[in-house]
Amino acid sequence: MSPTRFLTGITTTGTPHLGNYVGSIRPSVAASRAPGVQSFYFLADYHALIKCDDPARIQRSTLEIAASWLAAGLDPERVTFYRQSDIPEIPELTWLLTCVTGKGLLNRAHAYKAAVDRNNAAGEDPDADVTAGLFMYPVLMGADILMFRAHKVPVGRDQIQHIEMARDMAQRFNHLYGEHLVPPEAAIEENVATLPGLDGRKMSKSYDNTIPLSTPRAQLHRLVAGIVTDSRAPGEPKEVEGSALFQIYQAFASEEETAALRQAYADGIAWGDAKQLLVERVEREIAPLRTRYEALIADPRRIEAILQAGAAKARAIATPFMRTLREAVGLRSLALGAVPAQPATKAAKAALPAFKQYRESDGKFYFKLVSPHGKVLLQSLAFDSPREAGQCIADLQQQGLEAATGRLAPVADATPGEIADALRALQSAAD
Amino acid sequence: MSPTRFLTGITTTGTPHLGNYVGSIRPSVAASRAPGVQSFYFLADYHALIKCDDPARIQRSTLEIAASWLAAGLDPERVTFYRQSDIPEIPELTWLLTCVTGKGLLNRAHAYKAAVDRNNAAGEDPDADVTAGLFMYPVLMGADILMFRAHKVPVGRDQIQHIEMARDMAQRFNHLYGEHLVPPEAAIEENVATLPGLDGRKMSKSYDNTIPLSTPRAQLHRLVAGIVTDSRAPGEPKEVEGSALFQIYQAFASEEETAALRQAYADGIAWGDAKQLLVERVEREIAPLRTRYEALIADPRRIEAILQAGAAKARAIATPFMRTLREAVGLRSLALGAVPAQPATKAAKAALPAFKQYRESDGKFYFKLVSPHGKVLLQSLAFDSPREAGQCIADLQQQGLEAATGRLAPVADATPGEIADALRALQSAAD
Repeated sequence: MSPTRFLTGITTTGTPHLGNYVGSIRPSVAASRAPGVQSFYFLADYHALIKCDDPARIQRSTLEIAASWLAAGLDPERVTFYRQSDIPEIPELTWLLTCVTGKGLLNRAHAYKAAVDRNNAAGEDPDADVTAGLFMYPVLMGADILMFRAHKVPVGRDQIQHIEMARDMAQRFNHLYGEHLVPPEAAIEENVATLPGLDGRKMSKSYDNTIPLSTPRAQLHRLVAGIVTDSRAPGEPKEVEGSALFQIYQAFASEEETAALRQAYADGIAWGDAKQLLVERVEREIAPLRTRYEALIADPRRIEAILQAGAAKARAIATPFMRTLREAVGLRSLALGAVPAQPATKAAKAALPAFKQYRESDGKFYFKLVSPHGKVLLQSLAFDSPREAGQCIADLQQQGLEAATGRLAPVADATPGEIADALRALQSAAD
Repeated sequence: MSPTRFLTGITTTGTPHLGNYVGSIRPSVAASRAPGVQSFYFLADYHALIKCDDPARIQRSTLEIAASWLAAGLDPERVTFYRQSDIPEIPELTWLLTCVTGKGLLNRAHAYKAAVDRNNAAGEDPDADVTAGLFMYPVLMGADILMFRAHKVPVGRDQIQHIEMARDMAQRFNHLYGEHLVPPEAAIEENVATLPGLDGRKMSKSYDNTIPLSTPRAQLHRLVAGIVTDSRAPGEPKEVEGSALFQIYQAFASEEETAALRQAYADGIAWGDAKQLLVERVEREIAPLRTRYEALIADPRRIEAILQAGAAKARAIATPFMRTLREAVGLRSLALGAVPAQPATKAAKAALPAFKQYRESDGKFYFKLVSPHGKVLLQSLAFDSPREAGQCIADLQQQGLEAATGRLAPVADATPGEIADALRALQSAAD
């Protein structure tokens, strides 16, 4: 059984914090080690450009996120770990998908609609301050996914729509050009741990309530000291319900440790002591990671080399696949069997036999296989679409003549030997 | 004086006809020979994907258009003649521009609005059958123009808006990231010759009334015989006004020849004789071109080689320029002075001094120059935007310390020698 491909992108605008670690990095690294799984992780810096026009921040965030994932145990030998902007095939596929995506589909994207709603509520023009980047974001994401024929994309419920859009794009492309793209499925993350931040709200850069993953111990101590608690005195029983401190502890602790802290709350542990326990527990897990993080971040060249190796691995897939997709849509070398409309006999001087696709005045689509000397070797029956004709050619080339049974018209003077030779010649020219 | 750069794209969906020749190919080839001019001509096959999902047609059209331009005398040594899809930097720049283009700007594009108007008139959803490709077309065109820092783009009046949009994109990009892009100007073609077709309407593929440029003589004869005339008999004086035949003749003839035909009309020339004159006159100009065209089209490999050489010439500009633009927006190698947010002292182990841009809690933007050992050598005053800070760094690097006069805060223990050494080290690393 071929492995299931998972793909995950991380937008390079922020500094990784404990919330990212618990909710995304730790479970992703664990998942990447599962058997039968092939994982793609990428630093989504083209996406970062949509919301961040501070170049230094994008560069810094790329470094910090890469260092964090590697420090957390992501194995670049096992997974494909790359930076989006190292794959020039991604923006190219984005354009191909742009041409098959209905604008109406993008009008319905949640993120875009939310921006329009905000503008309408403020009495502004609906598209005020909306960039084409925000609007086109689902197409770039479609290219990210479809380029690597990912089967599963782990997302929260709010992101399911983007996966459905990528499915739509794949299906529309395949309908027009043959079965090339794999419609992905959302792998919905129902139980993503969200961590409260220092102020008790969800830990998030936008609330400025985060504990950065690389926080040194002394600083961690200070930040934890600032976690919001209530005013119950030492000795008074305390509520675990709604206690940010308890929830952060729980995200790092075993069941036994959690039960012990719950008991301590009931027994009236002093907030200062509880905070001390939290610092110790987080440190136990994070300190070794931080050591690795600091070594990595002090050596940006090493991270760059890892990303370059990842890009080479990713492009080993993307480059030939893009070649296939370009061929499918008609971005083709003229040296390989271009089809002049009228003077077909001239072009036949090329040294290879060639498949020629064309449309007849009946509006139907046909192809023929023509020898280097202009002799017709195969002639198709009518197809309703260029896609079907192209698919039949592809089948012929990959599986041989039998694949086209029932789709070919008889050609009087072409011998089976000639046909077989021509297919073989094309085959070896393609290899 | 550096030459003025002109840029022209031809969408690869059709077969060149006499109307294209008279209105576009012939004047463009003549213009490309003017002194002080640097011309870029490209086969716009990414654009073709917007309106054509027939791969064979795109490939065939690419071949025919390339052969026509070359046959008409375009000199690929003198101009830069390339196929758009051979320049992977084009879709990449398209994405960068997408992120700085307001969606509202694209809402106002004529071609998009015309589609919406048609849908509204038909009682359809405004975006029915509108692809994101149609909507994003001005951004792709912006990338085509801005990539090669074209000064002038020859366009008809209906295309001026696209050039204005490209100007907007350039200005917005420059505002955010520094003066990198050259806002282009429309070179409005007031006197474009439009040729009538066989039915008297403008010669156009969509009216199916064209005379293909490669039409052989016998076929040309048949087509011209079909040109609509009135029913005046031989000997009756005829009107040149509104005579398609006369207008086509005029597009090929000298003033003297035109005057002679005008006189023949007044003298009652028979339509058959007038048509014969037209065939002869067109043949005189087109026959040598057709001979070259047929030789070219019979040798697609030669055309492909010419286009590949053109792509190499184009990419000699596009590749380094894209590197600059990537650097400007923050898609940067980590090996070259990435800036970790907190542990700056660690990153300073890199062997080169580095400019570091950052934002302070006052919301202002700053930079400093830091030695490989972490010593601050230069410290900027506050800038209102990252763009201004980046521009100042660029000036410093290109023009030396004087360029930043008034923008720097004193740094107590940095000696002028240290600063000069650091700038020199950066310079030679960049070279």
